[in-house]
Parts: sequence; C-alpha cells; structure tokens
Amino acid sequence: MPGPLTLGQIASRLGGRVAGDPGILIRQVGSLEGAGAGQIAFLANPKYRPQLSATGASAVVLGADAETFTTLPRIIADNPYAYFARVSQLFNPVVLQPPGVHPAASVAADARLGQGVSIGAGCAIGEGVEIGEDSCLYPGVVVYPGCRIGARAIIHSGTVIGADGFGIAEDGGRWVKIPQIGSVRIGDDVEIGANCCIDRGALDDTELGDGVKLDNQIQIGHNCRVGAHTAMAGRVGVAGSARIGRHCSIGAGALILGHLEICDHVRVSADTVISRSIRKPGTYTGMYPADGHEAWLRNTAQLRHLDALARRVRELERKLETNGGGNG
Amino acid sequence: MPGPLTLGQIASRLGGRVAGDPGILIRQVGSLEGAGAGQIAFLANPKYRPQLSATGASAVVLGADAETFTTLPRIIADNPYAYFARVSQLFNPVVLQPPGVHPAASVAADARLGQGVSIGAGCAIGEGVEIGEDSCLYPGVVVYPGCRIGARAIIHSGTVIGADGFGIAEDGGRWVKIPQIGSVRIGDDVEIGANCCIDRGALDDTELGDGVKLDNQIQIGHNCRVGAHTAMAGRVGVAGSARIGRHCSIGAGALILGHLEICDHVRVSADTVISRSIRKPGTYTGMYPADGHEAWLRNTAQLRHLDALARRVRELERKLETNGGGNG
Amino acid sequence: MPGPLTLGQIASRLGGRVAGDPGILIRQVGSLEGAGAGQIAFLANPKYRPQLSATGASAVVLGADAETFTTLPRIIADNPYAYFARVSQLFNPVVLQPPGVHPAASVAADARLGQGVSIGAGCAIGEGVEIGEDSCLYPGVVVYPGCRIGARAIIHSGTVIGADGFGIAEDGGRWVKIPQIGSVRIGDDVEIGANCCIDRGALDDTELGDGVKLDNQIQIGHNCRVGAHTAMAGRVGVAGSARIGRHCSIGAGALILGHLEICDHVRVSADTVISRSIRKPGTYTGMYPADGHEAWLRNTAQLRHLDALARRVRELERKLETNGGGNG
Repeated sequence: MPGPLTLGQIASRLGGRVAGDPGILIRQVGSLEGAGAGQIAFLANPKYRPQLSATGASAVVLGADAETFTTLPRIIADNPYAYFARVSQLFNPVVLQPPGVHPAASVAADARLGQGVSIGAGCAIGEGVEIGEDSCLYPGVVVYPGCRIGARAIIHSGTVIGADGFGIAEDGGRWVKIPQIGSVRIGDDVEIGANCCIDRGALDDTELGDGVKLDNQIQIGHNCRVGAHTAMAGRVGVAGSARIGRHCSIGAGALILGHLEICDHVRVSADTVISRSIRKPGTYTGMYPADGHEAWLRNTAQLRHLDALARRVRELERKLETNGGGNG
Repeated sequence: MPGPLTLGQIASRLGGRVAGDPGILIRQVGSLEGAGAGQIAFLANPKYRPQLSATGASAVVLGADAETFTTLPRIIADNPYAYFARVSQLFNPVVLQPPGVHPAASVAADARLGQGVSIGAGCAIGEGVEIGEDSCLYPGVVVYPGCRIGARAIIHSGTVIGADGFGIAEDGGRWVKIPQIGSVRIGDDVEIGANCCIDRGALDDTELGDGVKLDNQIQIGHNCRVGAHTAMAGRVGVAGSARIGRHCSIGAGALILGHLEICDHVRVSADTVISRSIRKPGTYTGMYPADGHEAWLRNTAQLRHLDALARRVRELERKLETNGGGNG
Repeated sequence: MPGPLTLGQIASRLGGRVAGDPGILIRQVGSLEGAGAGQIAFLANPKYRPQLSATGASAVVLGADAETFTTLPRIIADNPYAYFARVSQLFNPVVLQPPGVHPAASVAADARLGQGVSIGAGCAIGEGVEIGEDSCLYPGVVVYPGCRIGARAIIHSGTVIGADGFGIAEDGGRWVKIPQIGSVRIGDDVEIGANCCIDRGALDDTELGDGVKLDNQIQIGHNCRVGAHTAMAGRVGVAGSARIGRHCSIGAGALILGHLEICDHVRVSADTVISRSIRKPGTYTGMYPADGHEAWLRNTAQLRHLDALARRVRELERKLETNGGGNG
C-alpha cells in the first residue's frame, strides 16, 4: 500500500480534474457520513447531498453536475463511483490473504496453480484442477476434480465449484443417478461470493465468462453458461442448462429456470422468476408486493378468483352494450 | 448435567406452580407425542390438547388456562414454551462441543479468544479477530480478519463471517471492485445457523446487535445493522446497508432490499419482499398464494391484464352512471 | 471402468433392443450436440429431433416412437433417459473420490463408518455418528454428533447435517434457546447436494427416507420427515416439523412452511410457497409471473386494490341487475 497521497497525485494517477487545494493529504477512503480528516468520500447520487454538506471528509469525488455542491477539495470525474473504487484500490488491498498454499489446505498433487495464487486454510483442490495466476481462494473453498479457474479470481469461503449437477432419471419410482462427466470452466477476473455452488456439467462444461461477478449463496446449475461481465446479487439461482448473456444484472433472490436463454444486457429485478427465454434487452420484474398483513389477506384472497372476475367484467360489458343499445 | 430432578425441584429452580405429585422424578424433556416415563412435555397451544390426553409423559408444563386439561403432575407457568426451554436447558447442554481449539482449526496468531471459547475442526479464524468468552464455533466456520464476535455466541458450521460485501462499480462495461474495508461486529448472546454469510462492511462495519438469532442460510449484506433481539428464520436475505430494528421477526425466505429502514417490532411474513422502509410496527406480508396448477394458470394469466381490467371497470362505472342517470 | 463396449454388449447388460450395427464400439456418453465418434447420445424429448439429425454420435438411445427418426445404430428402450443414465454409469464412476478417510478429515473416535466409506478433506464427523457402507462425503461436509446416515449416500461439499434446529422461545423480549436433543436419520441411497443444511430435531429426529435426492442449498428444518424417493431441486426450504410424502418432486426455490403435511406424489412448482397441508396428489403452483418492468409496475399497482375492484364489480352487477330489470 502506498503512504498518503495528495489529491493532485491521485488525479495524476487516475485522471479526473481537481478543484480546490490539490495538496491536501489523503490517507484513506470513507463514507460521507463516517469520513474524517485525511479521508476522501464520494457523491454519486444527488439524494445524498445533505450528507455532503455535513461530511467531515477532507475531499470528495463527484460528477461535474455536483461540482458546486461543496467547496471542499474535490476531484471531478465522469463516473464518480468507479473513480472512488479505484481510489480505494490505491489505499487498500483487493484481497486480504497472502499468496501461497496454507498448510491446512489440501491440494491434489497434479493440480496446477499459477504464480501468486493464494489458497486458504481448509480449501480442498481436486485432481487436475487448474487455477490461473494471482487468484485467491479464501478458507474453505472446495474445487472438485478437473475444474479450471482463470487468472485473478477471488473466491470466497464456503463456495463449492464442480459438485455434481442435479441429474437424476426417474425409473419406476426410483431415481437413477446420471454421472456428471462435464466440468466447470471459469474465465479471468471472476469474483464469486461465499457459500455459492457452481455445479459441474452433466456432459458438457458449465461456464462462467470473463469478469463475471457473483455475490453470496448463488447456485449455478449444470451446463449453464454465464456471459462475460454479468453480475448477480445474493442468492440468485440459475437452473440447469440456462444460457445467460453478457453484461446482464440479476437481482437478489431471482431465479432463472432451466434451459432458457437470456440475451445480453438484460436486467432482472430482485426476487423475479424468469420462466421463459428473454430475447430483448431491458428490465424484467415479477415481485409480489408486500403490504400490511390484513390488507394482503383481503386482496390476495381475490387472486384465486381473478379469472372469474375477468369473465364477470366481460359479461357486464356485454350486458351494458346490449342495454346501452336499448337506451341509446 | 444434573441427574434426575423432581417436579418440585424443577419448580423451585425455575418458578411456576406445581399441581399433582411434586415428587415425581424427571430425567429428560420430550414432545407430547414422543415422551415416555420420566419425561416432561409441554402444551403451549390448545390445538394440541388431544395429544395431551394421549401423552405418555410423566409430567407437563402448561398455562393456567389449560391446568384442568390433564390430571398428570404438572407445572403451571405464565409462558409454558419459554419455561419448557429452561427445563430442557437443565437436562441438556446448549452446545455440543467442548471448549478449546480443535487441532484441525486454523487460528491466526493475533486472534483473541475469550475464556471458554470452543473452535471446531476446520474453522479458520483470521488476523485480529476477537471472540468473546464461552462462544462456540462449530466445525467449518470461517471468520475473516478483523471481525469481532461477542460473548456466548453459537455459530454453526459453514457460516462465513466477514467475506467481502458485494461492492462493484460499473465502468464502460467492466466491473471495478470496491475494497471492502469495513468489518463485522457481533454483539453478545447471538446465535447464527449453518451456512450463513455475514458480509464485512464496504467502509463502515456490518453490525448484529445483542441477542440476535439467525437460522440457517441467511445472508446479511455489507453495512447492514440488525437491532438487538431480532430473529430471522431460514434463508432470509438482507441486502446491503439495510437497517433493521430491535425485536423484529423475519419469516423464512423473506428478502429485505438494500438501503431500507425497518423500525422496531416489525414482523415480516415468510417469502415476503420488503422494498420500502417500514416505519410502523406490525405484520407485513407479500406471499403469492399457491393453488392447483390449472387454477393457477387460469388466474395468473389475468395478472398481466390487471391494469386494463381496472380501466374497464372504471369505464363500466362511468357508462352505468350515465345510463343510470338516463334510466332514473 | 470397463473399456469400450459394443452396442450389443450394452444391450445385453442393460436390456433394450438394438437397431442397426450392434458391433459399433462405444467408449463414452455424450449429448446430441456435443458427441463425436465412439460416443452414444440419447433422445427423450421429440423437440430435440433436429439435434438428432445433426448429431456426430456413433449411436443413440431412444424410444420406440422415435426409432425411425434416425438410421444411426441405436438402442430402443422404454425409458430412454433412465437407460442413458445406466449407460453412463457403465462408463463413468458415480463418485469421484476414493474410499477411505482423508488425512485432513476429523472423525470422532467413536464414529462408525461402514466398509468402503469415503470421507473427504476437511470433513468433520462428530461423536457417535454412523455412516453406512459405500457412502461418500466430499470435502468439507460436517456431520454433528449422533446423526446416522445410511448406505451408498453421496453428500456434497459444504453440507451440514445435524446443526441445531431453530428453536427459540420468546420471554419478555429475549429469546431462550431450546436445546435440540433430537438427531438426524438418513436412509439408504440418498444424495444431498452442496451447501445444504439438514437440522437435528428439537426432541424427536429429523428424517430423510430411502432414495431421497436433494440438489444444492436445501434447508430441511428440525423434525421434518421427507418420504422415500422424494426429490427436491436447488434451494428448496422446508420449515420445521413439516411432513413430506413419498415420491414428491419439489421445484427450485420452493418453500414448504412448518407443521404441514404433504401427501405422496405431490409435485410443487418452482418458487412456490406451500402454506397449507396438501392431501391430494397433483401439481401445485404459486409463482408470480415476470413481465417487462413497466408493465409489471402498472399491473402490480392494482394488486393493492383487488378486493376493492371485486367489490366494485359486485356493485356493478347489482346495479345492472336493477337497471336491466327496469329496462327489460
């Protein structure tokens, strides 16, 4: 980590335009609410302007439209949030674990680990696994045999890569297991949160493209393909053989059913179930709204009669049409 | 564990009033259905009265309103369920693991463990972690560097505390990682189920108050604050920066979206998504009701026309108003 | 693993009827899309017929109704998918881990492991645990004290068996823990995916019947009983004390609330919440449909007025009845 940097030094490394004193020393990033002297905060959303007025930060990053909201020393950037992320990377490590294999990890003799790979305590790395350079697996990650992970991956604790996909065939009331002989291939610059499951393919491989970012507790079923730079929030589920495009964003708790295709640049809202393929970029939502319990009871009771209600309205329209004719 | 206790001895330790023979010996607790001789069961809900009539238990705990439902030796308590919990604690250990650090655990040299702490096999405790006295971490718990856990915590296997929050900033179709430099602070007397994820804060800390109780597979996003004595059932998700009050109950599978505030004494039903702040105590629900598949298909098809249906009803009202006027 | 087999040899081991050259050599299974020379694929659903026409496979398994869809060497089977599963088992191991206890596993001295049991690195097996012959626990599985697992189990990484059920009693704003003194009993031929949680019973045991198949991230609450040969897709949640019948299928993300009974041969669709007992076999669904965000906003806004809308329609019907009478 570098020592403190002046605002001017930050801007000369990362770009952006300085307003106010470029010589002010910055040692760390902080939130508008929590930052103190020597810290730099950011404003990306005008609704936090009151926090900007009250901040104890020594400097801020903001957009040109907000330049006049403060007289604090500041950096004006096109994308203040991404800029702030890069400032934070100047002052803070992106991974918390040193390179090398922890003595309490189990790594198969024939696994191939790139330069700078970090394997935490309790990890288990199976036969024939490949992990690209500078990747970090935090404690307790399991990688089943034959899976490949690219460079600069960050994989958080408890995540399981390459467990069997859920492949069973019904036969006379019993389930016959289908050996899962595919594997998992993960591109470069992928981050996977804690306690996720990326299943191995049934016959072909399960694939995560470059730059995919997954939050915690996500399940990716066998044979799925997730396109590059797609991000998923916590506890998303993707059922087997789904194909998800590039640059998609999937909200927390959403569920993508199996054998679907979702094109590039699709945004799925939280708690939404996608049950048909999506071929047009855009935002898709299917969340049932919460209400006070009594109101919910009253309104939801009508859901079971919705088709009947629609038929009654049609009947009313028909009658009124007739009556209206009679009256006109 | 104590040996057997008489009903009278139990009542003298825990309070309550004995009816029937106080000398009967009790060795263990049991359910009304499963209990046999030497066991004490409880009745907290009158709908289980038939099971009370048929029970093989030697004694029961019940409320004053149910005192006459049985002639078995019994303890009358204000809160029979909580009383029964305390009786069970007399006969059974609350944790199943002895104090001390298992040889197969990895504990950073500078981690500070209070007296009586129990760390199971396969746990990984990072640098600078603090864990208060008499806390028990079952096998396979991971605590990332810098997190603090209070006294008497019970943390079940597979839970990950302090993994990075999901902080990424979009920049020209790529994701830039925001280092997560906050930590996790957990109060005293907290229980966390298996395979949960409590993420570290982005800038400030993620916090769980005293007496918080979490079931399994719960995800608490970065910067959340959960108030004291709030309980969450299995697989609740709380997205980043949500603030949840004290004494709340969150039902199984519920999802609290990010940056919301929920006041004290709020009860959220199972499978409910909270997408706006709640400022009034009460029960909130948003669960879509299940039905036979054919009926569901018929009714749910109308959901996509609900706005149109409402407009058609308004039109009918308008027409009938006109017609009605014409007819009146 | 056997070496290559001729189509005729496969049929003589597994049954079915050969059409075309029975002498063709098969070395592995594959998908219609991905298979090449020496591989056998299958067709179970006529919608994949175009892939059959284009396949590079040397042979296929299909039903009698599809026998004429191809001139490739083929096996005609009553249940092509289950047949294919068995063919795959001929060429591939069902588990990827050799028998024996990995040196990095922790097994209690009094645990009883049957012949051929495989315990992966990082597993923790508690006191008094019993595991039947030929069962395989992949790395990082935790089995709490006293739990029993039958023969031929396959349990994937990160799964926790026998953690405390979520038993707490409210008393004056504080939660009192109820010791969970039941255990977990798992039958024979059960497969459990990664990062699942099967909680121990509060008083009696939690039970999974023979042949139960669970996908990843499933939560089975305390005291549940799941009947034999029931299958559950990813992230199903079953709350405490639910009784689920035999031969049920529970879709991904479904939630079964506590203290319910579901009879045999029930199919629950994905993302469906079951909040009442089901006493009749069939398919039950309760999934809120996704839509474009703007359409969803418009339609969903009406849900809060559904009861009022139904009352308005009733009023219209009443008025029109009166008017209609006046006009008739």
